[in-house]
Amino acid sequence: MISVGIIGASGYTGEELVRILQNHSDVEITSLTSRAHAGKKVSDIFDLKKPINTEFKNPVIDNLSHCDVVFFATPNGIAMDMAKELLDKGVRIIDISADFRLTQPQVWEEWYGKVHSAPSLLKESIYGLPEIPGQKEKIKKALIVANPGCYPTSALLALLPISKDLQKQQIILNSASGISGAGRNLDSRKLFPEGEDNFQAYAVRSHRHYPEILQILNNDNSDLDVLFVPHLSSMARGIFSTLYLNYQYEEIDQVIEKYKTFYSQAPFVKVISNGALPKVSEVVMTNMCHISLHQVDSAGQGANLVIFSVIDNLIKGAAGQAIQNMNIMFGINENRSLV
Amino acid sequence: MISVGIIGASGYTGEELVRILQNHSDVEITSLTSRAHAGKKVSDIFDLKKPINTEFKNPVIDNLSHCDVVFFATPNGIAMDMAKELLDKGVRIIDISADFRLTQPQVWEEWYGKVHSAPSLLKESIYGLPEIPGQKEKIKKALIVANPGCYPTSALLALLPISKDLQKQQIILNSASGISGAGRNLDSRKLFPEGEDNFQAYAVRSHRHYPEILQILNNDNSDLDVLFVPHLSSMARGIFSTLYLNYQYEEIDQVIEKYKTFYSQAPFVKVISNGALPKVSEVVMTNMCHISLHQVDSAGQGANLVIFSVIDNLIKGAAGQAIQNMNIMFGINENRSLV
Amino acid sequence: MISVGIIGASGYTGEELVRILQNHSDVEITSLTSRAHAGKKVSDIFDLKKPINTEFKNPVIDNLSHCDVVFFATPNGIAMDMAKELLDKGVRIIDISADFRLTQPQVWEEWYGKVHSAPSLLKESIYGLPEIPGQKEKIKKALIVANPGCYPTSALLALLPISKDLQKQQIILNSASGISGAGRNLDSRKLFPEGEDNFQAYAVRSHRHYPEILQILNNDNSDLDVLFVPHLSSMARGIFSTLYLNYQYEEIDQVIEKYKTFYSQAPFVKVISNGALPKVSEVVMTNMCHISLHQVDSAGQGANLVIFSVIDNLIKGAAGQAIQNMNIMFGINENRSLV
Amino acid sequence: MISVGIIGASGYTGEELVRILQNHSDVEITSLTSRAHAGKKVSDIFDLKKPINTEFKNPVIDNLSHCDVVFFATPNGIAMDMAKELLDKGVRIIDISADFRLTQPQVWEEWYGKVHSAPSLLKESIYGLPEIPGQKEKIKKALIVANPGCYPTSALLALLPISKDLQKQQIILNSASGISGAGRNLDSRKLFPEGEDNFQAYAVRSHRHYPEILQILNNDNSDLDVLFVPHLSSMARGIFSTLYLNYQYEEIDQVIEKYKTFYSQAPFVKVISNGALPKVSEVVMTNMCHISLHQVDSAGQGANLVIFSVIDNLIKGAAGQAIQNMNIMFGINENRSLV
Repeated sequence: MISVGIIGASGYTGEELVRILQNHSDVEITSLTSRAHAGKKVSDIFDLKKPINTEFKNPVIDNLSHCDVVFFATPNGIAMDMAKELLDKGVRIIDISADFRLTQPQVWEEWYGKVHSAPSLLKESIYGLPEIPGQKEKIKKALIVANPGCYPTSALLALLPISKDLQKQQIILNSASGISGAGRNLDSRKLFPEGEDNFQAYAVRSHRHYPEILQILNNDNSDLDVLFVPHLSSMARGIFSTLYLNYQYEEIDQVIEKYKTFYSQAPFVKVISNGALPKVSEVVMTNMCHISLHQVDSAGQGANLVIFSVIDNLIKGAAGQAIQNMNIMFGINENRSLV
Repeated sequence: MISVGIIGASGYTGEELVRILQNHSDVEITSLTSRAHAGKKVSDIFDLKKPINTEFKNPVIDNLSHCDVVFFATPNGIAMDMAKELLDKGVRIIDISADFRLTQPQVWEEWYGKVHSAPSLLKESIYGLPEIPGQKEKIKKALIVANPGCYPTSALLALLPISKDLQKQQIILNSASGISGAGRNLDSRKLFPEGEDNFQAYAVRSHRHYPEILQILNNDNSDLDVLFVPHLSSMARGIFSTLYLNYQYEEIDQVIEKYKTFYSQAPFVKVISNGALPKVSEVVMTNMCHISLHQVDSAGQGANLVIFSVIDNLIKGAAGQAIQNMNIMFGINENRSLV
Repeated sequence: MISVGIIGASGYTGEELVRILQNHSDVEITSLTSRAHAGKKVSDIFDLKKPINTEFKNPVIDNLSHCDVVFFATPNGIAMDMAKELLDKGVRIIDISADFRLTQPQVWEEWYGKVHSAPSLLKESIYGLPEIPGQKEKIKKALIVANPGCYPTSALLALLPISKDLQKQQIILNSASGISGAGRNLDSRKLFPEGEDNFQAYAVRSHRHYPEILQILNNDNSDLDVLFVPHLSSMARGIFSTLYLNYQYEEIDQVIEKYKTFYSQAPFVKVISNGALPKVSEVVMTNMCHISLHQVDSAGQGANLVIFSVIDNLIKGAAGQAIQNMNIMFGINENRSLV
Repeated sequence: MISVGIIGASGYTGEELVRILQNHSDVEITSLTSRAHAGKKVSDIFDLKKPINTEFKNPVIDNLSHCDVVFFATPNGIAMDMAKELLDKGVRIIDISADFRLTQPQVWEEWYGKVHSAPSLLKESIYGLPEIPGQKEKIKKALIVANPGCYPTSALLALLPISKDLQKQQIILNSASGISGAGRNLDSRKLFPEGEDNFQAYAVRSHRHYPEILQILNNDNSDLDVLFVPHLSSMARGIFSTLYLNYQYEEIDQVIEKYKTFYSQAPFVKVISNGALPKVSEVVMTNMCHISLHQVDSAGQGANLVIFSVIDNLIKGAAGQAIQNMNIMFGINENRSLV
């Protein structure tokens, strides 16, 4: 049994982690921490469909040092402060916050507006998108896995099969997210009456997932830029990304085939073939990413390919992918507890 | 008093027309027709907040020939069959369906899949977007006003101030619509459980509003193409369009100023100045279009301008704009009953 | 022109007051106060469909003493502290909070858990439900109007026509409210993902609207008790109350007729006659209360009458009714700005 | 392996059956029928999260006679026509429609408005609410299981532990259902814009689940009547029932204890003990029923006990309970594939 600790368990992502790990045959959750709820019974705070008879603990090293792996489902800036000590105790880390996603400390500091307290660990961390070719081998050995952001997951899965082949361009990434994507911290803009029956854009030019998407894309192809505009939609969960790009191809069926081949070993990516259009409802409560590809006319250098990529922001975009990474790290079947 | 008839009054647009015209001090609704509900009391079919004590009539000329103006809130293909006879009786027409929007019959027939029964009237019809420079004069004298589609209204208002100045390019138009945009005809995809908490794209490359947008844009600038991808969002009403384009400018404030000047006489367009981002909830139940403009980085020919344009699809995108057109046609203040 | 001040203008009720009063031909809003937003422009905080070019002020007497009337859209406990001073300056008060609704200070203190700071004013305050027989005359002369709670409005309008005639019994009041009813203060239970697609009961036996309902009912008939269970439903606004009671009658049509007669001079109550069932959507954004009455079988002393009563909680249940009261206080047509 | 057929697989209940049975280790779905979709691939019609590579067949005996058990997820009136022939072929039946729920043909015919075509089979059918004491033994041997309606499931589970002890009375059952409860057949009242942000009552005195509830209750206690008022709420799925009744007891904790004891062997009923209030979100996508009990004051014969009972209408209220029944019929662990 893998002994698992979860730090910051009281947010949406923490709740998803607990819910999924309760069904994981190889896992025992041995420590759930929450600064806000320390001492309270977990079942009193969460609406868990299966009750859990433990209390939240304080997020201190002593409560976590016995774990094989610890998930950080915390705000940014916490994992980087605790990582070193946990590693020293032999605990592996899966950070669902953004602390270890960017390889360059100065880029991190520019986008997150504070000093990075563990810059030397950035090199050791592995970006936890298992569908990147060769990445599973790295994840398997990683001490720190930086679990990707939700928007980057939807965007990168849509682009990876062709990113090396794209000519210099600005890809347009237009995404709509469910409101849980904004987290459980309190903000009047996230109240029900404000979110209900509404739609809006936010963070134009300034979303912190931008440098993360770019970093991974540019690993393949430094000629690419992304224009990313996120929107909030009246749904509890889900991300629907619409990408516009220019790609050299003859027939859309060839592109679809290329994607199917690329993802033939990826249990959580489904490439849709018959011209069908994915919906958020298809992937909600699953670890799946559904992708469809559509040929459009273009004069000259305009977009000639539209890609839709759809995930559950809390699962493939957060907790599910984190557990997929854990499975890989511990040599278990990648989809254990996730199907 | 203007004597008004409404054909096809039982859909969402017809209901909005009735609701707004009930508050119009210069209008008397003298004929409400509905094939499905002929003979039934209007108040038994509609949830009108003010009751109305008339019955639906059959949509035949005799029930409409006394009107000063008739609104078609019908499916496509009906207005074109009745228009000639109504005009002969001296009745002016505002067609909220698509029958008179495209000037070339063969383009209409290609996109709507049937023969146009009144091609000679296409020349006489005026596209009812009053914010097009010079258009109000034409609308004032028009016998037939072709009321714009909802997506074209949001897209064109976003582009008109600069369309003449744009260089050859493909503009990307990514829109999210409320589900009322799909009409009240029955389809299991529009049932509540299917629409709730969901998001999806549809009609990629094939939405009938595409040639309409292009026709108006190309009046200004034949170098422009549009890549239009509509989506359905979990809201009852509203359209949120996000446009990506390349435009030569120095400072975004200059662009905002240009838009404000362009729309200085347009009571229903608000150009947002302080970097704020519009929301659907701001415009729902109003005839307003809110527009905001955002500068983004671009390498080379990529998009350097993002425009958000938001309307209520049933009001500025249908019934409200139709009434705005009627006000102009009859020399009344443009915003009568609409503010 | 009536000079109006609004205290605590930044909540949902304050926003509704502003929205409706903007269309009131006899009113000038001369002071908008908000402790949280003092100094900020009103239009920057609210999504007003008509902009308003003033700033929020601090809620101090000097900023309000010039007003003819002041609305309290504040949390409980604020109006009672400011009322005396305002009255001394000749300012009349409409309190939308609960400070002046209960006539007995000790009952107030028991239910609201604090000492009432102005018990002597309770006698002077008038309960602002204008549909109570004789109440309009009292409201007209009132210095303080205690605007009813949302649930009491829906419940009392459903019962007033027959409350005197009811035999000793416990009436069951089962209500479902939209989530705006819980206010705009921050609470994770009111976040969109928690409210979406959900339904729950709350405050069984303990809702503060219970003594208010009972006090008014017992004015008519001291034999009546109410068992009140409120629920939260996934809608932004609206209250749907279902009442179960025993009443001596022969034919339901007689009861319906009795209600219609009782409310024949009440412009905001619609008694539905043809067996139709009201819906929240019918009354949302209006000051209407829709009531329908249904005969059911009963053995012995069980309920033989089911009443549905539906309002918009923010309008007839708060801001709209407050403005209706203001109209009455100042001798204006009761429905000015409300239809 | 149990060979399973599903008739009428294209509705919401059919889809749930398929979704859950895909995870059932002892089941093979060997026949899926749908008159509307015969010949089409199942995966093209359903948004199944796991694809299924079969086609819908016609609902004829030959396509079903090889099955061990057949589920009817059909409109009322179909199972009764096919049951005899299936039984003759040795196929056991779980009818999720209402054809076999009422034991007396004349009551059935009165409420369902047509002649019952298999009245002799009513005696053989067993009401499939496994939590009724002694019922599992009957279900185990049953040839026809009449799967309970959704409202009866929520109501009966709330009452069974005390129904024998209740004095003569009319119990009030006030229920709110998600809109999927109305099925997938087309009706403009179920379109998204009509259902969104709304709440309404329906079928007062006339809901067909009334005689079903009464029949089971009266098995225990012929002194009981029920006043049942169903409502539609803006949620995709779920039923929240609020019951008001009079019961002789001292302390609520004794009642809670009695319920816990009664359901100690029932894996799908959770009696909530600490005064907490259940929510629909807690049980959605599960086969659970959550029940909570609350003491209220009562003068005389009024209600002194309020019970909340919450289920997912499509699972414990339909497909999940049907599978629970199947597990019992075939001697498998009751909760196989359901947790």
